[in-house]
Amino acid sequence: MRIDKEHVHSTNEKYLQRHRSSFQELAERLEYSGIDVEGVISEMASFRVAIPSWALGAGGTRFGRFSFGGEPATLHQKLDDVAIIDALTSCASAISLHIPWDIPEDASATAAYAASLGIEFDAVNSNTFQDQLGQNHSYKFGSLCHTEKAVRDLAIEHTLEVVRTGDALGSKSITIWLADGASFPGQMNFRRALDHTRDSLQRIYREMPEDWKMLIEYKPYEPNFYATVINDWGTSYHLAQSCGERAFTLVDLGHHLPNTNIEQIVATLAGLGKLGGFHFNDSKYGDDDLTVGSVKPYQLYLIFCELIEWMKTGGEEPAWMIDASHNLKDPLEDLIQSLEAIQTALAKALILDTATLDKKQLQNDPAMCQEILKDAYETDVRPLLREVRLRSGAALDPITAYRELQVRHHLIRERGSTTRATGL
Amino acid sequence: MRIDKEHVHSTNEKYLQRHRSSFQELAERLEYSGIDVEGVISEMASFRVAIPSWALGAGGTRFGRFSFGGEPATLHQKLDDVAIIDALTSCASAISLHIPWDIPEDASATAAYAASLGIEFDAVNSNTFQDQLGQNHSYKFGSLCHTEKAVRDLAIEHTLEVVRTGDALGSKSITIWLADGASFPGQMNFRRALDHTRDSLQRIYREMPEDWKMLIEYKPYEPNFYATVINDWGTSYHLAQSCGERAFTLVDLGHHLPNTNIEQIVATLAGLGKLGGFHFNDSKYGDDDLTVGSVKPYQLYLIFCELIEWMKTGGEEPAWMIDASHNLKDPLEDLIQSLEAIQTALAKALILDTATLDKKQLQNDPAMCQEILKDAYETDVRPLLREVRLRSGAALDPITAYRELQVRHHLIRERGSTTRATGL
Amino acid sequence: MRIDKEHVHSTNEKYLQRHRSSFQELAERLEYSGIDVEGVISEMASFRVAIPSWALGAGGTRFGRFSFGGEPATLHQKLDDVAIIDALTSCASAISLHIPWDIPEDASATAAYAASLGIEFDAVNSNTFQDQLGQNHSYKFGSLCHTEKAVRDLAIEHTLEVVRTGDALGSKSITIWLADGASFPGQMNFRRALDHTRDSLQRIYREMPEDWKMLIEYKPYEPNFYATVINDWGTSYHLAQSCGERAFTLVDLGHHLPNTNIEQIVATLAGLGKLGGFHFNDSKYGDDDLTVGSVKPYQLYLIFCELIEWMKTGGEEPAWMIDASHNLKDPLEDLIQSLEAIQTALAKALILDTATLDKKQLQNDPAMCQEILKDAYETDVRPLLREVRLRSGAALDPITAYRELQVRHHLIRERGSTTRATGL
Amino acid sequence: MRIDKEHVHSTNEKYLQRHRSSFQELAERLEYSGIDVEGVISEMASFRVAIPSWALGAGGTRFGRFSFGGEPATLHQKLDDVAIIDALTSCASAISLHIPWDIPEDASATAAYAASLGIEFDAVNSNTFQDQLGQNHSYKFGSLCHTEKAVRDLAIEHTLEVVRTGDALGSKSITIWLADGASFPGQMNFRRALDHTRDSLQRIYREMPEDWKMLIEYKPYEPNFYATVINDWGTSYHLAQSCGERAFTLVDLGHHLPNTNIEQIVATLAGLGKLGGFHFNDSKYGDDDLTVGSVKPYQLYLIFCELIEWMKTGGEEPAWMIDASHNLKDPLEDLIQSLEAIQTALAKALILDTATLDKKQLQNDPAMCQEILKDAYETDVRPLLREVRLRSGAALDPITAYRELQVRHHLIRERGSTTRATGL
Repeated sequence: MRIDKEHVHSTNEKYLQRHRSSFQELAERLEYSGIDVEGVISEMASFRVAIPSWALGAGGTRFGRFSFGGEPATLHQKLDDVAIIDALTSCASAISLHIPWDIPEDASATAAYAASLGIEFDAVNSNTFQDQLGQNHSYKFGSLCHTEKAVRDLAIEHTLEVVRTGDALGSKSITIWLADGASFPGQMNFRRALDHTRDSLQRIYREMPEDWKMLIEYKPYEPNFYATVINDWGTSYHLAQSCGERAFTLVDLGHHLPNTNIEQIVATLAGLGKLGGFHFNDSKYGDDDLTVGSVKPYQLYLIFCELIEWMKTGGEEPAWMIDASHNLKDPLEDLIQSLEAIQTALAKALILDTATLDKKQLQNDPAMCQEILKDAYETDVRPLLREVRLRSGAALDPITAYRELQVRHHLIRERGSTTRATGL
Repeated sequence: MRIDKEHVHSTNEKYLQRHRSSFQELAERLEYSGIDVEGVISEMASFRVAIPSWALGAGGTRFGRFSFGGEPATLHQKLDDVAIIDALTSCASAISLHIPWDIPEDASATAAYAASLGIEFDAVNSNTFQDQLGQNHSYKFGSLCHTEKAVRDLAIEHTLEVVRTGDALGSKSITIWLADGASFPGQMNFRRALDHTRDSLQRIYREMPEDWKMLIEYKPYEPNFYATVINDWGTSYHLAQSCGERAFTLVDLGHHLPNTNIEQIVATLAGLGKLGGFHFNDSKYGDDDLTVGSVKPYQLYLIFCELIEWMKTGGEEPAWMIDASHNLKDPLEDLIQSLEAIQTALAKALILDTATLDKKQLQNDPAMCQEILKDAYETDVRPLLREVRLRSGAALDPITAYRELQVRHHLIRERGSTTRATGL
Repeated sequence: MRIDKEHVHSTNEKYLQRHRSSFQELAERLEYSGIDVEGVISEMASFRVAIPSWALGAGGTRFGRFSFGGEPATLHQKLDDVAIIDALTSCASAISLHIPWDIPEDASATAAYAASLGIEFDAVNSNTFQDQLGQNHSYKFGSLCHTEKAVRDLAIEHTLEVVRTGDALGSKSITIWLADGASFPGQMNFRRALDHTRDSLQRIYREMPEDWKMLIEYKPYEPNFYATVINDWGTSYHLAQSCGERAFTLVDLGHHLPNTNIEQIVATLAGLGKLGGFHFNDSKYGDDDLTVGSVKPYQLYLIFCELIEWMKTGGEEPAWMIDASHNLKDPLEDLIQSLEAIQTALAKALILDTATLDKKQLQNDPAMCQEILKDAYETDVRPLLREVRLRSGAALDPITAYRELQVRHHLIRERGSTTRATGL
Repeated sequence: MRIDKEHVHSTNEKYLQRHRSSFQELAERLEYSGIDVEGVISEMASFRVAIPSWALGAGGTRFGRFSFGGEPATLHQKLDDVAIIDALTSCASAISLHIPWDIPEDASATAAYAASLGIEFDAVNSNTFQDQLGQNHSYKFGSLCHTEKAVRDLAIEHTLEVVRTGDALGSKSITIWLADGASFPGQMNFRRALDHTRDSLQRIYREMPEDWKMLIEYKPYEPNFYATVINDWGTSYHLAQSCGERAFTLVDLGHHLPNTNIEQIVATLAGLGKLGGFHFNDSKYGDDDLTVGSVKPYQLYLIFCELIEWMKTGGEEPAWMIDASHNLKDPLEDLIQSLEAIQTALAKALILDTATLDKKQLQNDPAMCQEILKDAYETDVRPLLREVRLRSGAALDPITAYRELQVRHHLIRERGSTTRATGL
C-alpha cells in the first residue's frame, strides 16, 4: 500500500477550518511574546527521525509475543512501511537497518527502490548479541570483548561487513550496541574486557570509510544482569575518545539506571563534542521500549531544550532514531505516536524564551526559571505541528488519517495476517 | 502585610483583555468537544489545598540551611502568610499545623484570628521524630513502636495532645507520620515493632473524638535507613483496617521507592475505601520535597485522573495538603507554584473525555486510550485557571502579582531578615 | 542417567578426612557457643526446596537464547534431572510443574515414575501470559483481569485445569502469577482490573479441592511496563484476604522495586498469617533470575533469619521453590549452586544467637545486634552443609561431584545436543 | 583517655588460647590451598584507613539529631579519639580534617601532638556547601560553579586555604566534594556550570604544592535534588583529565544511583589511572552513611577484589577513608565496626585464588568463577584479623575491648555529656 498526497488531502479537508483558526490564534499569541513563528516552523519542517527497520513488526518480551497482521516480510516492504509513516507525518524519511536482519539481496536495487520512495539510509546497526545459523564461534560470552581472539575477529569482521552493506546503500554511520558483559560476579575480568573492546573498536574505526561516523551506545544491563562492558556514558565517552574524532557516544533514553538525569548527560556530551546519536523511546522501569513521550513527556522536553541549545550554539545535529518495541499497539500507530511526541517536545523547546531564561539563571532566580520553562511546556503546540505537516502535504492528524485510510486493513490484505518481520 | 481585593485587582487589570480573549477561545474549543466548561470551573473553584505551617519558612537539608528574610515568627504570622497565598490564588484557605511547633497560646484567640482571615484548620500533625527539651524519654529508637512501654505511652499521650489542640481549633483529623524504624539489620524485631505500632494506634484511635479521622502516612526510608515500620501502603492499609472505619491511609508523593506507580496505589486505596489524605510535592530521587509538578507533571496529571474518577463515582474527597521544603526559592512563591501545578493537573483531569476513554479501554485499544489522555494533557488550561481565580477575586497570575506587590519586601520590612520559622 | 549412592560415595572418599576434621572443629566451636549442633543438622536435613520444571533447560532473554546440550525433552526426563540434583544435594526431592508445558500424558504413570525416584509434586503453576496454539481468545490484554468475560472464563477454566492436573499427581497447591497489566497510561482501568481479578480468583478458590492452597504471586513490572495488576505484596495480601483462609501471598525475591526491604515484607506477611510461598533467585536490577545468593547473599541470610524466627514461633513453613533462568551456566550446575546458597543462608540463620539478639534489641543496642548477626554470618558453615549431605548419602561437594561424574556429558550422549526443554 | 598496650593486653588474655587454636586451624587450611598466610598477614598489617574528624561525634539527619555524651570538643580531642581507635584496631593511624570545622590554632603544635600519638594527616576536605558566619558571598547557588566570579573566587580562595592548612600539618592531598547543583529544572545551565567548575579546579590545581594530589568526588544528588554538577564518575574523570596528572577521581560508596555496579567503576577508573581515593560506608537507599559492610558486605568484598587486583598489578594505592554518619550508635563503636568490615573484605580478597579465577574466566566458565569467588568469601577470616591485631599490640576483639575498658564512660567523665563535635 502506498499513501499519496490525495489520500492525505482527503482526510485533512474536514479539519482544515478548525486548524486554521487555532493556528492563527497560537501564532498571534507566540508572536506577541516575540517568537519568530515562521522560523520555528522552518526548523520543525527540516527535522527528520529515522525509523528502525525492526520496529515495523510486533515486538515481544521474554514471556512471549502476540503477533500482528500485515507485518513486512521483506526489506522492500519495510521501506514501504516507512514511506507510509512519512507520507502521514513528513518527518520520517529515513530508515535504520539492522544487519543481518536486513541484508539487501541487491544493494543497488534496494537503494533505487528507497530513492523512489524518498527514503534515505541512516545509521546501520550491527548484531553480535545473537548467533547466526552456522556461525563457527558463539557470542554467548561476548563479541568485541571476548577472551578469545577468534571470536573478537569474527565480531569485528561482522561489524565491518555491516559497514560495507551500509556503504553500498548510502549510510554514513554505524551504531554499535554490544550486549557484551557478565551475569555473575567473577565471570569477567572488567579491565581485560574493556581493553579488548577498545582494541576491537579501534580496529573497526581504522577500517571504516573516512566519511563514516561510529556511534557507541551504552546500556547498564540486559541481557547481561551483573555487568555490561559499555555500561554508562563515561565508558562510551572514553572509548570514543580512544578511537578518534569521528567516534561518538549514542544516548538511548531507556539505557539508564533509575533516577538518572539524562538531560544533564546530553548537555555534558554535547559540551565535550561527543554527542553523536540519539535513540528515542520511553520507560518507567528499565529498557521498556515504550512509545516516546508516553510516560515521561516532561523529561523529553527537558532533553530537547538541551539539544536545541546545543544546536543553536553551533553544535552538530546528532543522528535521531526511534528505538522502541511494539508489543501491544499496531507498530505503525506506535511509531506515529512517537513522532508526534518528539515533534511536540521539539516545538516546545523551540518556543522557549532562552534569552530570558539565561538572564534568570544568571540572577539565580529558580522560581522564574521554572516559570519560563513551564510557559513553553504548557503551551498547546499542536496547531504548530499540524501547520508543519499541512505545508508538507502530510496529515493534520496522522493517527486519525491512518485509521480513516484503513492502512492496517490494507496491509493485512496485501501481506496476510501471519507474516512476521525480522527483529526481536 | 495583608493583600486586599483592590491590590489584586490592580495587578490584574493590564492582563484582563488578553485573558478574556484566550479564555473565550479555550471555552469554545472545549465546548465544541462536549465539555461543560462552567461545570469544570465550578469544580475547580471549590478545590482547596491546605498549606503546612512548616513550609512558610526556609527549609534545609542535613548539609545546611540558607535563610530567607521575613519568615513568620509566630503562629499568627503563619496565618497571615496563608492568607496572602489565598488572596492571590483563592485555593489555599486552610492551614495544617505541626505540634509542638505550632502550639497556640490561646486557642480561641487563634481560632478567631484565623476565622477573621477566612482560614480553616485542616489535619494536625504530630511529631515524634524529635525530642523536645526536657522530655523524660527519647524517641531516638522509636515512638509508637518503641520496645519500652514508657516511651510508647509518652508518644501516645503526645499524639492525643495534638488531637486536643487541633480539636480546640476546629480540626477534624490527625496525620500520623512516624519516623520509627531501624538503620541497621538486626536492630529491630520487625513483627514486634509492627505489633506495638498497631496497639498504639488503636489506643489513639479509641480516644479520638468520634468525628475525627486518623490519617496514617507511610514512607520507605529516611530518617531511618534500613527499615521504617510503616514503610508502604500495604502496611498503612493493614493498620488502618486494624483501627477502624475512620482510619485511612495518607499518600505522600515523595514517599515511594524508585519507579513506583503511584497512581495505581491511589486507585487501589480508593477502591478499598481507605484513601484518606494526600501530600503533594515532587521528587526525582527520594523525599526531595520539591515544588509540586516541577519534575514529573505528567505523573501528577495521571494521579489526578484517578482522584477525579474516584470522586466522580461517589468517593469521598481526601484531605489535600502540600508538603514540600523550600531551600532555594522564596517559600511563598514555591507554594504558589505548587498550587498552580495542582490546579493545572486538576483542570486537565476534569476535561478528560472519560466516557470515550472508558469505551476504548473496554475495546483494549491502547493507542486510542493514549490519544485521549494526551488530548486533555496537551491542552493549555491556563486560561481556565485564570478565569477561576478572576471570578474569586484572586490574581490572574499569582507569581507576577506577588512580585509586583513586592510581598517579600514588605514582609522583611515588617518582620526583619533574621526571623526563623519553626520547622525542619 | 541416574546417580546412585555408590557413585556419590566414590566422589566423596578423597575429601572425607579433611571434612571430618573441619566439621569436628566447627562443631566444637559452635557447641562452645551453646549451639545444639545436632538440632541444627536435623533441621537442615529436613529442609526441601522444589525445583521448577522450566529451569532444567537453558533460559533466554528477549535478545536471544544460547542452547545447552542434553536438555530434558520429556516430563520423565525432567524428573530424572531433579533426581540427579537430589542425589547430589539431598534437598531437592520435589518438582514444581508448569502447565501447559508439563501436561503428563498419563498422570498415574507419571506419579508412579516420580515416586520411584523419590520425587514429590510441589505447587503447580498456571500460564496465562502466553496464548496456546488454537486458543479461541487471546491473553494479549490480560487473563483473569480481562475486560471481556469470555477471556476471564477461559483463564479461570485453564487455571482449574491446572489444579486438576496437579491433583492427579499429588500436588496440594497452585501458584498463580499473572502477567496481567498495562504498558501505557490510560490503557487499563486500575479498579476494574483489580475487581475482575478478585472475582476470578474467588471463583478459582471456591472450586479448588478443600485441601488445596492458593499462592498469589506479585510482581511490579515485566512483561507489562506501566502497571501490573498484582504489583506488590499489599495487593496480593488484599486478594488473599478476599479469597479465604487457604489463600496466601507468594514472595519471589526478584519481584520488587529497587531498594525494597524484602526481609521486612517477609516478616510482615508472616505476622499477618499470609506468607504462603517463596521463590528463590537473585538479582541486581530487576527480575534477573540469577543463581540464588550470587549477588546479595547477605540479604538472603537476613530473609532466612526472618523465616526461621517465624517457624520457631510456630509459623507454618511456606512452599519453597527456586525460580531462576539459566542463560549462561549449565542449568543443573546453576540449580546446585542455588541450593548451596539456600542451605548456607539457612545454616547461618539456624546458628544465630536469637536469645541474645532479642535481649540486645530490647536494650536498643544496634552495635551489639549487628555483632550478633555478623557472628553467625561470618561463620564458615560449609562443614555443616557437608555433614548434612554426607549423612543423607549425598555429595560432600555437589558441583565437584557433578563434574567428576561427567553428568552433562552423559546427558548429551543420551539425549543429544539439540533437544530443547519447554520453558522461557 | 588514652589506651596503652597493657590495657589492651589485659583484655586479650582470656581469648588468647582460643584464638591461637582457631588461627592455627585456619592457617593450615589456607596453606593447604596454597596461600601464603604470612604474606597475607603482612599486607593486612600495612593497611591503613583514615578516620574523618567529623565522624567522631553524633551525626544527624534533616529530621533531627540525638546527641551522644563525651564527644570531642577540640581538634586535640579528635586526635585522642583516633588514637583510641588505632590502639584497639592498629589500622587507623590517620585522620582526615574538614576545614573550617578543624582549623588548628597552632599548626605546628597540633602536628607535634598528632606525631606524639602516632597519627598522620591524610587528605584534607574543603567545605563550600555551607556559609560561614560573616562570609561576604553565599554558596546557596553554588561555589566553584557559581554564575558570579566573586563567589567562585571566594570558593577557590577557601579551597587553597584548606590546602595551606593541610600542608602545614603534613597532608599531601585535598578531597573536593561540591554540593553545587540545582534543585529545579531550568535553574542552572549545565554546560556553563561544568565549564566554571573546570576552570575553578584548574586554578586550584595550578596553585597546589607540586607534591599534592587533588581528589575529585562525585555524587548524583543531595543536597541538590535535580542535578549535581559533578554527578558521576564520568564527569569527575573528565575534570581530573582536564586538570592534570595529579588530579584523580574519588569514589564514595554511597554516591551512586540505585543498582549501580560500583566494583566495575572501580576497575574502570583503575584501568584509566585515575582512581585516587575511596570513601567507605554502606547504604541501602541513597547516601545513607551507614556502618561499612552493614548492609552489602558482598559488594564490599567484590570491590576489594578489584582494588587488590589493581594493586597487585602495580597500581598505586588510593587514599582510604571512612565516611559515615553515626546517628544511632556510639561513633567510636561504629568506626571500629567499619574497620572490622573493611579488614574482613580485604582479607577475603587477599586469599582469593586469582590464578585459578583467571584461568576459569579465560575458559568462560561462570559457575567455576563463582565457586572460586565464594570459596574465599565463605571463609571465616576473623582469626586472620585477630592475628594481625595481636601482632601489632591491638585488641583481639576491638568492640569487646572498647566496652570492657568502658571507653565511653571515661570520655563522658572527662568531657561531659553535652559537648558537641563539629560536623553534620
